[in-house]
Amino acid sequence: MQGLLAKWDILCTSSAVLRFVDANLRGIGQVMFQDNPLTGLLFLIAIAWGSYAAGVPHVAIAGVVAVIIATLTAYWLRLDPASIAAGLYGYNGVLVGLALATFLAPGTLLWGYVVLGAAVSVVATCGIANALKPWGASALTFPFVVVTWLLLLASYGFSGLMGTALPTGSVVVPFQAYEASPLQVIDLVGGTLLSISQVFLKASGLAALIFLIGLAVNSLASAVFALGGAILAVLTAHLLGAESSLITGGLLGFSPVLTAIALGTVLYRPSGRAAMYAAVGTVFTVIAQSALNVALMPLAIPALTAPFVLVTWLFFLPRSSVESSSSTVPGAIDASPP
Amino acid sequence: MQGLLAKWDILCTSSAVLRFVDANLRGIGQVMFQDNPLTGLLFLIAIAWGSYAAGVPHVAIAGVVAVIIATLTAYWLRLDPASIAAGLYGYNGVLVGLALATFLAPGTLLWGYVVLGAAVSVVATCGIANALKPWGASALTFPFVVVTWLLLLASYGFSGLMGTALPTGSVVVPFQAYEASPLQVIDLVGGTLLSISQVFLKASGLAALIFLIGLAVNSLASAVFALGGAILAVLTAHLLGAESSLITGGLLGFSPVLTAIALGTVLYRPSGRAAMYAAVGTVFTVIAQSALNVALMPLAIPALTAPFVLVTWLFFLPRSSVESSSSTVPGAIDASPP
Amino acid sequence: MQGLLAKWDILCTSSAVLRFVDANLRGIGQVMFQDNPLTGLLFLIAIAWGSYAAGVPHVAIAGVVAVIIATLTAYWLRLDPASIAAGLYGYNGVLVGLALATFLAPGTLLWGYVVLGAAVSVVATCGIANALKPWGASALTFPFVVVTWLLLLASYGFSGLMGTALPTGSVVVPFQAYEASPLQVIDLVGGTLLSISQVFLKASGLAALIFLIGLAVNSLASAVFALGGAILAVLTAHLLGAESSLITGGLLGFSPVLTAIALGTVLYRPSGRAAMYAAVGTVFTVIAQSALNVALMPLAIPALTAPFVLVTWLFFLPRSSVESSSSTVPGAIDASPP
Repeated sequence: MQGLLAKWDILCTSSAVLRFVDANLRGIGQVMFQDNPLTGLLFLIAIAWGSYAAGVPHVAIAGVVAVIIATLTAYWLRLDPASIAAGLYGYNGVLVGLALATFLAPGTLLWGYVVLGAAVSVVATCGIANALKPWGASALTFPFVVVTWLLLLASYGFSGLMGTALPTGSVVVPFQAYEASPLQVIDLVGGTLLSISQVFLKASGLAALIFLIGLAVNSLASAVFALGGAILAVLTAHLLGAESSLITGGLLGFSPVLTAIALGTVLYRPSGRAAMYAAVGTVFTVIAQSALNVALMPLAIPALTAPFVLVTWLFFLPRSSVESSSSTVPGAIDASPP
Repeated sequence: MQGLLAKWDILCTSSAVLRFVDANLRGIGQVMFQDNPLTGLLFLIAIAWGSYAAGVPHVAIAGVVAVIIATLTAYWLRLDPASIAAGLYGYNGVLVGLALATFLAPGTLLWGYVVLGAAVSVVATCGIANALKPWGASALTFPFVVVTWLLLLASYGFSGLMGTALPTGSVVVPFQAYEASPLQVIDLVGGTLLSISQVFLKASGLAALIFLIGLAVNSLASAVFALGGAILAVLTAHLLGAESSLITGGLLGFSPVLTAIALGTVLYRPSGRAAMYAAVGTVFTVIAQSALNVALMPLAIPALTAPFVLVTWLFFLPRSSVESSSSTVPGAIDASPP
Repeated sequence: MQGLLAKWDILCTSSAVLRFVDANLRGIGQVMFQDNPLTGLLFLIAIAWGSYAAGVPHVAIAGVVAVIIATLTAYWLRLDPASIAAGLYGYNGVLVGLALATFLAPGTLLWGYVVLGAAVSVVATCGIANALKPWGASALTFPFVVVTWLLLLASYGFSGLMGTALPTGSVVVPFQAYEASPLQVIDLVGGTLLSISQVFLKASGLAALIFLIGLAVNSLASAVFALGGAILAVLTAHLLGAESSLITGGLLGFSPVLTAIALGTVLYRPSGRAAMYAAVGTVFTVIAQSALNVALMPLAIPALTAPFVLVTWLFFLPRSSVESSSSTVPGAIDASPP
């Protein structure tokens, strides 16, 4: 694997086109914090399969178009070349493209929306990263969330853009007890896998496995935390009595998966206490996901990965005050994930 | 009184258990900015009485459990010992415990919620305090507000947690004129007292008097500003034509009480101009309380002390620009209340 | 023109009253970033005409009262004299006054609301400006937005303040196709002009022309960008299929007009790339305006200029990272508009 990547790196040095491809693949990988073109390629395959299997191949195309537009926009704005090459200006773009094509009906204006959204996601990524510099925090997927929320909300005011999969608006009402068919182990396994694939808005077990392989080729720890986060999220949601279809569809687990990777492998040096801390954060992300699902009911838009962003920032900010994380191996702390 | 406290301090130096009790009592006192274990004890008595009188003794227990969990969490995270000892990691916890037990039905999961919420309140307190460092502002009760909002909102998605006292969801509608029985002086007195006890989510005149005594034993000025803030809030709300039951129940006054103490005695050096400034802030907090009550109607959650936090931050931020507050007695300015 | 202004400046040096008038006129001009008393006077004439023509002369009076109260408050708080003289503490006040009188019914309490709102707008302007210092960003009209939102929301809880022109509350629903009478050129011209006058909450073509003249006497570039921004906004909204009455009423264009001036002439040194950047920001402000109109439906309050503030901040923050804007003519960059 390392040999393959080394060869690819050599190829890239000799070709601007390949370097451009490389930056875009890394951008897809960075959705899950992986700065690795092979990971990005595997993620792309999983996205393509998930879209094809669901009968919406144009969603995968929108994701590809969006990441390309985002990278080109970053070049045009003459942003930091190293960051562009690492895909740090691409991962929000790919998510914007996937989300817009998932929630809105196909049509000419949808593609205009994808291009505009991808371009603005770069401005937002750069702007939010600059805004967060005083705290050493990273933008995470907040640029994706903000830009997509605005574009989806705005679509309710435009006859040219119609929703296909947007939630229905409603004021908040007490929980409606569903005919609670008890969850089977098979449902929990399914919920765990879909929690991983839903990071990319896909509901496919096979895609989830490819995502896990993509993580593992770059970072085994990331794959382990992703899987562990998904299991923890599904169990937490089940314990609290969440709606079965949300659990088995992975819709309460995709944000916790990202929190688990971020807090477990990227932000804090691994240790028993850090793992416990990440676990609390992961559990609380399930709460935050449910909370934002509820809070956005009147607005008829999805929460996207906002719960992940919110909880990860909240659990990241105490970093300088949590003693041992800085007192033992200072050099091991990396404050600058995507 | 001072002799009693001095003896207690000596006792504490010889016992880790007493120091732990001391930290938790101070945590309860810090809800109203008082770093004093006797104040905390009086507040605790008032909370217990208010809960017992309302037939919900488990609410007081939830508050105690929450402050203990919060203090333990702060130890576990190895946060600054002086801040822990001063109760600065406990006051948000006690409020989380009181609020969850007030708004949600008792049950096993409620206690899990209280423990999780109290623990996360410490992460939030530390994180938000760090986030606010560039401005020298303090977290106030914002950690309590954020964590409780998320937990309450999320409960609408969980069959295991049911609301008992949560508001009903609705879009915003024009003011409904009520049969306006004119307010009597006795109502205004009641509204003033309950504005003080509602800081701890209690509707009890006797509890309010104990809270005032608790304030006075540590800071007479705080007691005066609390009472003055409550009176000003009740009169403002009455003048603007707010609903009588909200006024007499203290539900428009508890945030202004906190604003009055914060702006009047903690943040700015006392002076005529500072008192006037605090008065404007207190009046505007009544507006903000009504505004947030309205804004949260579609979400069916209470505003908690968010109006206090919002207005106090807004009125605190100009500090460095408001000339005389820094030009006359610089040493008298204390920028770091809880 | 310059001679006239020079004479006025000399007159002002000899009279505190004239200096006070000057500060207030500049405050009105600063709504569109113009530090010029003649511009302010022309804007005031346009406001007066727009109010008179619409049969609501008290709206213009509320604007004048509010800017005076704001300036007096700034004196009372002893804020930076140069900023007061440049009108930087007045522009949010005038907007608060105009908005409150536009959306609420006349009456004694309305005037109390105007005075309180104008005074608090100064606290908010100073506080928000201080909060934004780490990023070198300016408060823009965010103080106006926050204060007015709170006052309008709160009015739903007060029998003493009734709405006259507030939107009706509703959860978000899919776009209702209107009988789409195709827009005529005359409608587009009208929409363009009203996009400019709606910056001051006025629907008057004549007022729009006076506003343009007011801009031109101080900065021809500002007038060009205002007009260009309005045209671009109207075309974008039309292309996306927005409701005709919103387009022709200028209600989707006033925020983009401000974005165009801010990004085009105030924040970045003019260049082809900067113009393109400003154009993308202007187009995205139309999206943000529609999005916030939708998002605020459940709360039954107007978006005001929040879309302008949001997008301008988002497009301003990358400033230090967008290479050429700082590498070519550093001295030409001015980071401190109102």
